[in-house]
This record gives sequence, C-alpha cells and structure tokens, in this order.
Amino acid sequence: MRIGIDAMGGDHAPAEPVAGALAAREMLKEGDRIVLIGDEKAIREKLAATPNWAEWIEICHAPENIGMDESPVVALRQKPNSSIAVMAEMQADGRLDAGISAGSTGAFVAASQMRLRRLRGAHRPGIAVVAPTFHGPVVICDVGANVNCRPTHLYQYGVMASVYSKSICGIKNPRVGLLSIGEEDAKGTDLVKQTRALLKADKRINYIGNVEGRDVFGGVVDVMVTEGFVGNVMLKLMEGMAGGVMKSMLKELVSEMPQLAEKVMRAAKAVAVRYDYNEYGGAPLLGVGGISIICHGASDYRAIKNAVRVVEEYSRQQVNEQIAELLADGAEAQ
Amino acid sequence: MRIGIDAMGGDHAPAEPVAGALAAREMLKEGDRIVLIGDEKAIREKLAATPNWAEWIEICHAPENIGMDESPVVALRQKPNSSIAVMAEMQADGRLDAGISAGSTGAFVAASQMRLRRLRGAHRPGIAVVAPTFHGPVVICDVGANVNCRPTHLYQYGVMASVYSKSICGIKNPRVGLLSIGEEDAKGTDLVKQTRALLKADKRINYIGNVEGRDVFGGVVDVMVTEGFVGNVMLKLMEGMAGGVMKSMLKELVSEMPQLAEKVMRAAKAVAVRYDYNEYGGAPLLGVGGISIICHGASDYRAIKNAVRVVEEYSRQQVNEQIAELLADGAEAQ
Repeated sequence: MRIGIDAMGGDHAPAEPVAGALAAREMLKEGDRIVLIGDEKAIREKLAATPNWAEWIEICHAPENIGMDESPVVALRQKPNSSIAVMAEMQADGRLDAGISAGSTGAFVAASQMRLRRLRGAHRPGIAVVAPTFHGPVVICDVGANVNCRPTHLYQYGVMASVYSKSICGIKNPRVGLLSIGEEDAKGTDLVKQTRALLKADKRINYIGNVEGRDVFGGVVDVMVTEGFVGNVMLKLMEGMAGGVMKSMLKELVSEMPQLAEKVMRAAKAVAVRYDYNEYGGAPLLGVGGISIICHGASDYRAIKNAVRVVEEYSRQQVNEQIAELLADGAEAQ
Repeated sequence: MRIGIDAMGGDHAPAEPVAGALAAREMLKEGDRIVLIGDEKAIREKLAATPNWAEWIEICHAPENIGMDESPVVALRQKPNSSIAVMAEMQADGRLDAGISAGSTGAFVAASQMRLRRLRGAHRPGIAVVAPTFHGPVVICDVGANVNCRPTHLYQYGVMASVYSKSICGIKNPRVGLLSIGEEDAKGTDLVKQTRALLKADKRINYIGNVEGRDVFGGVVDVMVTEGFVGNVMLKLMEGMAGGVMKSMLKELVSEMPQLAEKVMRAAKAVAVRYDYNEYGGAPLLGVGGISIICHGASDYRAIKNAVRVVEEYSRQQVNEQIAELLADGAEAQ
C-alpha cells in the first residue's frame, strides 16, 4: 500500500514528519511505500543523512502550506497546492491508500470529507482518539469533527469506535458508554436520551449505559461516545492536566527532595510513557471511505511512525469494511 | 445570620456535616447560628462529645432523606420532610439566610429553584465551581444546573461568576473566557457564537475571548463560561484524573523507590492540598434569591466548615446584590 505523510504539518515540520517516515520503515509490509508530501527541497534536506531513503520513500512536491489558524474551508479553496489538499486528492484518485497529517485538524478533516467519498452507510465522520489510561486504552469518539450531532450520528460513533477498539486496541468485546451527566436514564440532554435508545436497541454493541466524565479513567468503558464539542473539550482538558498538573506536581516533589531529583524524574518518565499521545499513533477519522489519520500538532517522529503502524493494522483488519457491514445491517434492522 | 446545614447529605453523613458544624464556630460572626437539619437523634449523638454545642448550633428535625440516585423532582414531592426540602422551605420563609448541602445536587438545585425566588434579573441559576489550579482558582460556571442553555443564560453566567471570582476568590479584574473548541471567532457552536457577541458587548466584564479545555490549567482565565452539560463533564473528568491518575502515578513512583515511600507521600500530600475540593468550600448556586452552597458528596468536615466561610463572605460582600445590580443595568443597556 501507499501511505501519504504530510511533511509540512505540525509544530515540528518538516523535521519530525520526515524523521517519522524514515523510522517507519520497520512498520511497512513488503512493497509498501511512503509518500512525503510537501516542499521538496525542505524534505530532501531532511532525508539527506539517510542515503538509501528512496528504497521506501517517495516525494510529492506541494509548495503551499495551511497554517493552524487558517479557516479550513477557505484555506483549502485558496491553496489547492497545499500538502493537505494534494494528499486528499491523491487519496481520492487512488494514488494513496492512506493519509497522515499532524497539521491543521480542521483542514485535514474538511479535505477528507470533501475529497474522499463517505463510507457506505455512515452519516457523519467522527474523530476517534485513544486516551491512554491506567486501565488500558479508551477510545473517545467524536472529539471535534462534528459539532451538530444528531442521535444517529452518535449511535454510529458507537458502532464505528467499537470496531476500532476491537481491531486496533485488541479489546475483545469493547464496553461502550454514552457520555452524560449522570448514570440514570432520566438524566442528560434530549440528544443523550435518544441516542441511548438507539445504542440499547443494537445487540451487536456491548452498550453498558450512560457514563460520566470521571469514568474515562475508571476502567469501566473501552469506548466513550460523545458529541464533538464535548469530546474536544475533554481531550484538551486531559492534555492540559497531563501536561501542566503532572509537571507542576513533579517539580514540587523534586523541590521537596532535591537530592532525589534524578530518581523521581526517571520514575516519572516511566509513568508518563503511558500517557504519551505519541505512543498511540494518531486518531482516525472514522466514517470516510479511506484511511485518514490525524496526529497531534506537537507530534514527534514516534507519533508519525506509530500512525504508520495504525494504518497498516487498520488496513490488515479491514476496519472500514467491518464498519460498512455493521452500518448496512443496522440500517436494515431499524 | 442563620446558616442551615443538611446533616443527612453526602457520603459521610451525619458524621461529617455535624463535625463541620462544630468546626465552623470560628467562622461565625457574633450572633450567627448554625441550624443542623436532619434526624434529630442521629445529630444529637454526633454532638454529644461537645457539651457546649448549643452555644452556636440548633437542630431542626427532618426525618426523611433523599438518596443520591432518586429523581430530584419526584423525591422532593414524595418527601416533604426530607432535610433538603425542609432546609429550602426555611430559606424561603426567612428562617434561614443560607443553606449548605453535600447531598443530592439535583434535589438541592431543584429545591432552591422551586422554593427560593429567582434573583432579580437572572434568567437561569448556574452552579459555579472553583477549580483549584497551580495558577490560582478558576471559577467554572455552569457545571450542571442547566442543560438547555441559551446565549443569555451563558452571558449571565459570565456576569455572575465574575462577581463571585472578584468577591470570593479575591481576583481584581477577573478574566472571563468562553469555552469553545478553538480560539477563533469562527469556531464553535451557534450557542458559542451568539454568547460571544453578548459577552463582547458588555464592557463591564473583562471578556478575553474563546478558550479551550486546556486553558483551565494555563493561567489565562479566572472565569470559564460553559453550558451545564459540558461543565459537568469537565468537573467529573478533572476529579477522575486528579483521583485516579495522581494516585496511580504516586503508587508507581513509590514502587520504583520503596525506600522513599514516606517522603514521596508526604511531598505528594503537600501538592494534593492545592487540588483538594474540600479546601474550596463548595459551589454556590448563582442566580437564586438566597445563598445555596452545594458541597461535593465526598465532603469531609473541612468542606462543610469552608462552606460556612464562603457563606459568611458571600453575605459580607453582598454578592447577590452586586449581581442583581449588574444584571439590571445590563438589561437596560441591551
């Protein structure tokens, strides 16, 4: 398969995306190739230290770049030669089997929605993020693709994220929870109540009921279904806490025990790995007719390399085919 | 003033509410009294070890109790003699100047909304929680009183929480942020966009723009405005992370350095105090014509004692009068 990587996307581009493409060689099956999309000169510079790069990497020149603060739709229209626009075009016409970007999430989602066909039966694509917790990975869907959610969208997120949890995280019978503000049936918004009925009716999903924000870390769910606005707030909040709070806490610990600074930091590092988004290889946009993996803007080469791993697994497990089948059957059942 | 405490509310009732009432003596002004509402026999038992309790405490017998899992409205109707219902009635007819409960938040909010008049000019009450962060206290409003939010409700939360931040947290010119999923004007739901216009138009508020979930911990805002569903998810998520993650992290640190267990734990405790909700004295229900302070279900005596401190400060600073004045002027201006 041919896997595209946006070389210009993210806070550390092109260095980290290119380093990720180099490191990803070990993830590839025989015959697979990586296509770096972006400014050719800049990419070549970063590849220069690895003389044999051409054995698994190609370059596709895309001179324009979409900034993090640009309006996605406007930017895509004004910059048809941006790395994100070119990559989506290549995915759409079959020159790429998958796309990976750590650039503007909005632009990447919009490009995927505009250029790739929607996955058969899927109403709205949703971004599924794997939150690392001490009890294992929890897939949260959606975290920001869709802020005008209807019950069928949320229901489908439950179906799609279940398949993802099973296929990519290796959870046998993923427990699906619907995020609300209380565990009782009676609580929550109309959206929650209507979605609950749909999830409950589908016996192919292991729907365990409504859950609360704290349950992400409680080991009670493997999949958490929520609308994009709320999911995005959760994601950012977790990042803020993991970053700010943990760091401050360690600083305080060290200041109390300066002689142990090194040991504390080493132990903390071991812990932090479990919470490191770079280890999880990006978030798929579920529901599009292709494989689009969104990486965090702060991604380093490991995140890009892990995204390649996810792409390979996604393809091998036929995640999209599984989802389409479930959605087709679900539509008949209802 | 006369301050009511629900002796039956919370995971550790009646022991902790009663202990809180005893400890709160030092918070009271001359002539102030605390009224413990609940099962008289159980309350007397807990007071027995303090012979002079009657110097500042009274008891009001309320034989019924509303459980955490009961539907608030149904429970209030079926249990008119529950501690929460009796307390609200006493607030409404002037026998109490304030009410404090660590019991069912839903029932307490519903009772306050039904029995207390709405504060002049306020459309919908909102719960304001003080989130302890390393950069100082951040007031988040609403965290669950109102899940059918309109732009005017959100705008008023900004006004009310600003007054609270200034008066109770001592922040001079509180920076108000509107929670969204991106900092740009164009992002977010219609609710966010319409609220943004209202906040921007009111020059008496220090509105700094849209903020994201991570900004709670970033030291950029003192007040975060959000609808109840999202605010509640945030609150629970923070609790889950602070509890589960921190504990797991410390456990791991200790297992890496068993000989230092005691030191690590002592240092950690010093840190944890900053994140301890018990130190913050509960969350006011802003927008009702009275003082209702909601405590966490897991509250210990310190939380109850601190809630009494908040009540005294709330009254001294005339928080409700300030809010009513701002809302009245705002209505004219618009």
